[in-house]
Amino acid sequence: MNPSRHTAVLSHPTDTLRPFFEPRAIAVIGASRTRNKIGSEVLHNLVATGFTGAVIPIHPVAETIQGLKAYARVSDVPQDVDLAVIAVPAAQVAGAVDDCLARGVPAICIISAGFGECGEEGRAREQVLVLRIRDAGCRLIGPNCMGLLNTDPRFAMNATFSPVYPPAGNVAMSTQSGALGLAILDYARQLNIGFASFVSIGNKADVSGNDLLQHWEHDPRTSVILLYLESFGNPAKFSRTARRISRRKPIVALKSGRSAAGARAAASHTGALASSDDFVDALFHQAGVIRTDTVTELFDVATMLARQPLPRGRRVAILTNAGGPGILAADACQAHGLVVSELSEQTKAQLRSFLPEAARVGDPVDILASAPPDHYGRALELLLKDEAVDSVLVIFIPPLMTDTDKVAEAIAAAASAASGKPVCGIFMRSDAAPTALAAVPCYSFPEPAAIAMARVAAYAEWRRQPEGVVPELRDLQPRLARRIVESALQRGGGWLSAVEANALLATVGIGMPRSLLATSIDGAAEAAAKLGYPVAIKAVGAALLHKTEHKAIRLNLGDRSAVRRAAAELTRSLGDRMDGLLVQQMVNEGAEMMVGAINDATFGHVVVCGSGGVLIDLLADAACRLHPVTDRDAAEMVAALKGVRLLRGFRGAAALDEAAFGDAVLRISALVGLCPEIQELDVNPLKVLPGGVSAVDVRIRVAALHRGEAPPTRT
Amino acid sequence: MNPSRHTAVLSHPTDTLRPFFEPRAIAVIGASRTRNKIGSEVLHNLVATGFTGAVIPIHPVAETIQGLKAYARVSDVPQDVDLAVIAVPAAQVAGAVDDCLARGVPAICIISAGFGECGEEGRAREQVLVLRIRDAGCRLIGPNCMGLLNTDPRFAMNATFSPVYPPAGNVAMSTQSGALGLAILDYARQLNIGFASFVSIGNKADVSGNDLLQHWEHDPRTSVILLYLESFGNPAKFSRTARRISRRKPIVALKSGRSAAGARAAASHTGALASSDDFVDALFHQAGVIRTDTVTELFDVATMLARQPLPRGRRVAILTNAGGPGILAADACQAHGLVVSELSEQTKAQLRSFLPEAARVGDPVDILASAPPDHYGRALELLLKDEAVDSVLVIFIPPLMTDTDKVAEAIAAAASAASGKPVCGIFMRSDAAPTALAAVPCYSFPEPAAIAMARVAAYAEWRRQPEGVVPELRDLQPRLARRIVESALQRGGGWLSAVEANALLATVGIGMPRSLLATSIDGAAEAAAKLGYPVAIKAVGAALLHKTEHKAIRLNLGDRSAVRRAAAELTRSLGDRMDGLLVQQMVNEGAEMMVGAINDATFGHVVVCGSGGVLIDLLADAACRLHPVTDRDAAEMVAALKGVRLLRGFRGAAALDEAAFGDAVLRISALVGLCPEIQELDVNPLKVLPGGVSAVDVRIRVAALHRGEAPPTRT
Repeated sequence: MNPSRHTAVLSHPTDTLRPFFEPRAIAVIGASRTRNKIGSEVLHNLVATGFTGAVIPIHPVAETIQGLKAYARVSDVPQDVDLAVIAVPAAQVAGAVDDCLARGVPAICIISAGFGECGEEGRAREQVLVLRIRDAGCRLIGPNCMGLLNTDPRFAMNATFSPVYPPAGNVAMSTQSGALGLAILDYARQLNIGFASFVSIGNKADVSGNDLLQHWEHDPRTSVILLYLESFGNPAKFSRTARRISRRKPIVALKSGRSAAGARAAASHTGALASSDDFVDALFHQAGVIRTDTVTELFDVATMLARQPLPRGRRVAILTNAGGPGILAADACQAHGLVVSELSEQTKAQLRSFLPEAARVGDPVDILASAPPDHYGRALELLLKDEAVDSVLVIFIPPLMTDTDKVAEAIAAAASAASGKPVCGIFMRSDAAPTALAAVPCYSFPEPAAIAMARVAAYAEWRRQPEGVVPELRDLQPRLARRIVESALQRGGGWLSAVEANALLATVGIGMPRSLLATSIDGAAEAAAKLGYPVAIKAVGAALLHKTEHKAIRLNLGDRSAVRRAAAELTRSLGDRMDGLLVQQMVNEGAEMMVGAINDATFGHVVVCGSGGVLIDLLADAACRLHPVTDRDAAEMVAALKGVRLLRGFRGAAALDEAAFGDAVLRISALVGLCPEIQELDVNPLKVLPGGVSAVDVRIRVAALHRGEAPPTRT
Repeated sequence: MNPSRHTAVLSHPTDTLRPFFEPRAIAVIGASRTRNKIGSEVLHNLVATGFTGAVIPIHPVAETIQGLKAYARVSDVPQDVDLAVIAVPAAQVAGAVDDCLARGVPAICIISAGFGECGEEGRAREQVLVLRIRDAGCRLIGPNCMGLLNTDPRFAMNATFSPVYPPAGNVAMSTQSGALGLAILDYARQLNIGFASFVSIGNKADVSGNDLLQHWEHDPRTSVILLYLESFGNPAKFSRTARRISRRKPIVALKSGRSAAGARAAASHTGALASSDDFVDALFHQAGVIRTDTVTELFDVATMLARQPLPRGRRVAILTNAGGPGILAADACQAHGLVVSELSEQTKAQLRSFLPEAARVGDPVDILASAPPDHYGRALELLLKDEAVDSVLVIFIPPLMTDTDKVAEAIAAAASAASGKPVCGIFMRSDAAPTALAAVPCYSFPEPAAIAMARVAAYAEWRRQPEGVVPELRDLQPRLARRIVESALQRGGGWLSAVEANALLATVGIGMPRSLLATSIDGAAEAAAKLGYPVAIKAVGAALLHKTEHKAIRLNLGDRSAVRRAAAELTRSLGDRMDGLLVQQMVNEGAEMMVGAINDATFGHVVVCGSGGVLIDLLADAACRLHPVTDRDAAEMVAALKGVRLLRGFRGAAALDEAAFGDAVLRISALVGLCPEIQELDVNPLKVLPGGVSAVDVRIRVAALHRGEAPPTRT
């Protein structure tokens, strides 16, 4: 019972995956003598792709299967087994695993279904398996997956039941749907996308997408990483890992389940403003992950990244031999954030020097249906030399007289010149891409090419910008903050009183109007006199969270009698729903924005800012980021709002303190860091003033952390 | 010189196109003895597809071409020629046309380029040609096009230079880009989309998309019409024609040039709110035209329409043998306006009765990778019977053990049962769609199928709704309106004075606050006393159009001294930029919306409504329709605004008069109908009150109509 030959390298987490990708011997448990069974197909595929190591069928009685010597159990195999692929009925899996562990197998891939995806009982069975496998220092891919493959010629391993073995290349992919994996491999082969490796992670009971990311981070054969995700195991870890890797290797993700995101029952605006799909967007954005909307887009982007350099900007030139497709390309570029370049006068003059008079040298550059291959080559070279061009889309519709392959060769030659700028082809014909374009990604229509280039340009822009930092704020009062929250938790948590909420916000240095709490009409009048007129009075109480709807607020009270009248009215109309009257200095200047945070069951704390006041309901104008928020995040969040125009000298008004708004976002992030028990936090309106901000209305709910929210141990 | 055998039927405009589609003899002018020339290719294609009539090459010297007897000129041809296809250099076209007209040819298609697309001189040449052709009672397709084809076996005519002849079917298409036409025919053949006819209209010097629409309206072989458009000749006529045809035959359009739409220099909000691409959207929406975003989407929608009935609603069921693609389909459905159905308990029970336990009978219905063909068939039948289901997407990923063709047969059989509900297949594999699915549209990925179904469902919804009517408004004062506008035109047009603008708006019965014009501080005080406090004072003058920016407005003046103070301040600060002071009753209640109109050079008058006040700049929340606006249009416009929530009991407030807002939209439409000289009209804010509306601020610019705006004669 040698625990594992790999124990020595277990210290580095990614190394535990090495036996999956670089095995010298693979046992296939469940290989049967008839084809079209999963185990037999895995066996067959390993042999068919010429796996360089030993393939060992495990079968209760057979002597040989597909010509290979079979054993009854893994523990009978004389040589060391690096990887066991299990494809037996669910009920037999535990026995097979025990056998593998007894033999010291360091990597197991369970293809069999019938575990975590099948209700409570299946989840329990899966948990037992995982614990046993981990205890033995072994790792598990699956269960409920389609296996994995590695095209490295040193291994040439197709340990999946898919008949498709993709061409070798620099793309690695992890998929959470096995069936989709089948379609993906098929599509990739059709598009001639080269794969380095491919893993179907199934229920990801042990090895997760995060583990694979870390593995591929150090894999020299991998330069583009694709993910198909349905759920996140540990979004915080994903965020940290992906953020680091994205700086060097692009990660492209298709995340499904947008529709399941749905609406959340939330008492706060913050909660209602952002769906969990917005949180996914925020996570991806923060980590530099390129999110695509469709399966085909995933591959359109991957092809671009796998074959071409990153563009230095969003300015694209379009070269075409037909007007219509050129216009369609320009439309799609503009719709997805690219800018059709304004060519330099020099480039235009040089184009004119050899193109026919009817050609159009503006952008799109239309070299006409009669364009011979060398016009494509010369025009493309000129466009790539133009300082105003970051990338080029080359459109070709085969007219009668032109040889498609020659055009492709001319494009390929011009594109390979050391411009360092990406080029893609759009060959509008039903045949496959010309072979001459092996290094230039080739699309059948203008729109997908434009979308792919736009996604890549946005990623390149992300990468060019400096990484943000979570700034150290020196003027916080962490002990006071903890004291306020803990006192609320001691009475069982829930919504803080207005006084508590204001005090908690003050601990992170967010400005607010002076206010006093009164419990009587006289008290309100006295408080107003102390604060100075005009004042606002708010009836406060747990039942009065949305003050406007309850008519629980009176603004702009200019003298003592107005204050008394308002206090009396509120007391009369709200009676016992009211705990007291908060008398507050009026803030009549500035713009109404909002800032808040919510603790999401999956994503943890998310910080939100947006337009406030009435606009919050009407615009749903919000931006969010996962905690902790960096300075770059905060600036981007504020800049992304439609309402930011209110801060930038709107309609001739003076500019307001946009920086202080961003600072407030960072302070809210710091507050939930100090007090992770904050479940919902709403500052609405947060008045952004010519200098600083003022938190006019604050609501905060706290709850004790339950165990699930302790720092997760799962990777 | 017999003018034309077709003179007798010229009375009905569509009949003049008949010789293009149903010729008995076609002359090809420019047929040469070498292949790969356009004329020779047309000749070759006509012969190759087995054109049922006579094909007559015209060549200056050749006796025969491609085995057919050739003539030097059309006028030498002994038999009548119904259609002449001209493919000679531009300089020789006029002579060829004269020859055709001399012979009484009723239909000419000019493929040659070098006309309207080539600057001023080319446009002039084209105009001369068109006049000559029309004078002779002949019609022209092109120039600068790729020809036309008709798959009707009675004609079997490929009069294009494209080598691709699509399968026969019920789709007709017109394209404004010849090159795109080549790609389109190629793609259509690949997708096995059957065409009835196909016309490349090139410069549409004579025959336009509108003419073809009218032709196809009465063509029994055509049930779906596709358009690729780059520009509109006569949008008003297109709107009328398409609106009529769309009730019976769907029209699907790809309109390029969004990016060229660009921003318009406009002094009014109305002008800035909507781009000409918004006008295209409005036109298409009013006419029931399905707009697609990409070339592939055009065909995805066409296939759906050509092969399946219209759905009765937006509720879609998803049937799949794999989880991941099911989620992707649900995401795409939701993102594009479909609703994933909640199945009835009965359906669920019936599904459970034969599906394995692990199958999921919620929606998506996941029948697992092991699903045999008959599970597909039975499940699909049950879903189609469910009252809660309007359409079904069937996803299939070929697993190991299932025969794809048998699954396709089961789906086809279930889909053809008389449910009257549309079904489409999503077969995720690189092979072509199974032949068994000839009647069921088949896609390779979930997203395009969902988008196509969503577009079709929206169209079906449009068709189910009653046509709107332009209501007859009885309380208008048309003569007064004309008098106001004509008096302004007499001084050269331009912006109306505040008094004129208010008076003009009053002629169509839109409510406004009482106001008086003062020219002095004393006069303002007097006016305020007459109107009753509080009042607003606005400095008026041509240079003060955006009053907020100029601080040219004082609100809520509660007594005589406040009025005097405000009037004095305005007089001091604005001095000579000011023509007078408009004293107006304050409207403190209600919500600020806007309504307006603009006269677009291409689209004519467009009516706009939106959120007003500050929101107009922040939200850009507007809806527009081409004049004249129907009751249905107006209700839809108002309902489409985000700001409509302000009218519907926002945050506990009382509901406001949404109907009166819609009525104001109709009255603005009526006003531009009475006074087409209105170039820009802005009512902002239009206060929507608990009862009625009040136009607080009105700006109107008029200009004499120039000739181009006279009712266009071009079709």
